[in-house]
Amino acid sequence: MEGPPLHADVAPLGFLLGSWMGEGKGFYTTIQPFEYGEEIRLSHVGKPFLAYTQRTWALDDGRPLHSETGFWRMAGADRVELVIAHPNGHAEIAEGELRGTSISLATTTIASTSTAKQVDVLERQINVAGETLTYELRMAAVGQPLEGHLQAELRLGATH
Amino acid sequence: MEGPPLHADVAPLGFLLGSWMGEGKGFYTTIQPFEYGEEIRLSHVGKPFLAYTQRTWALDDGRPLHSETGFWRMAGADRVELVIAHPNGHAEIAEGELRGTSISLATTTIASTSTAKQVDVLERQINVAGETLTYELRMAAVGQPLEGHLQAELRLGATH
Repeated sequence: MEGPPLHADVAPLGFLLGSWMGEGKGFYTTIQPFEYGEEIRLSHVGKPFLAYTQRTWALDDGRPLHSETGFWRMAGADRVELVIAHPNGHAEIAEGELRGTSISLATTTIASTSTAKQVDVLERQINVAGETLTYELRMAAVGQPLEGHLQAELRLGATH
Repeated sequence: MEGPPLHADVAPLGFLLGSWMGEGKGFYTTIQPFEYGEEIRLSHVGKPFLAYTQRTWALDDGRPLHSETGFWRMAGADRVELVIAHPNGHAEIAEGELRGTSISLATTTIASTSTAKQVDVLERQINVAGETLTYELRMAAVGQPLEGHLQAELRLGATH
């Protein structure tokens, strides 16, 4: 499948393109630790953004857990902008820095629906080394200070 | 393909499920009118939300235009909540009312990345009659007052 070429604005994010599959661990002061399977897909249509979908499932019975979807943009050579919708009622704007194949992002806004739980800050640290993507997500939510929440390692499957 | 049953919380939105294809017209004070093709997909995994993806393309040469992605939720029997990520750097929270198979939504928050254009308000009016979905979107953006921006009619294709 020959698609359009990657837009020059997001060429520095080209290393993220493809389908990534792996597993992660979740933890937070207010919950029991849990383990999850995860699939992340990043694709493009030749425009100056990457389309992003992510879904996770419980390792014990495969039931769907969190998912999120949105877009990745660049603002200049090393600034990354993220726009993500969450099914629990949050819309996330995050911005940060690209260094090689590492990205550090922190939310600048989290907007919420009337019935969503309170989430104040999300910080994402993403690293790609060869065909392995690892990330850590830190969160301040439901009155708790910023602390580790998710940690996962994924392998590159199909590229597209 | 037998999937999980639709979650009771979003059962009132079940009439939206499926793939919708059609055409629309775009207009705004600051731009030339244009026509577009559109596909909307709404699906679920048995959890209390619908997953939503939308993409449009130019009718003349098929090049991709706007797209958006997010989630639909219910807050009680007739309140609808929308969380949508836009590739132009906006994250949208909209809330409104469901009456039968008509939905009226207005943004409560539009959060933006540093490089996004200014968008102040989006209002969506969606009607489903049988296998036809029509919508109108009104927008206040780039210093303009609220005015009509998009109008489209889509037909239900595959349900899923």
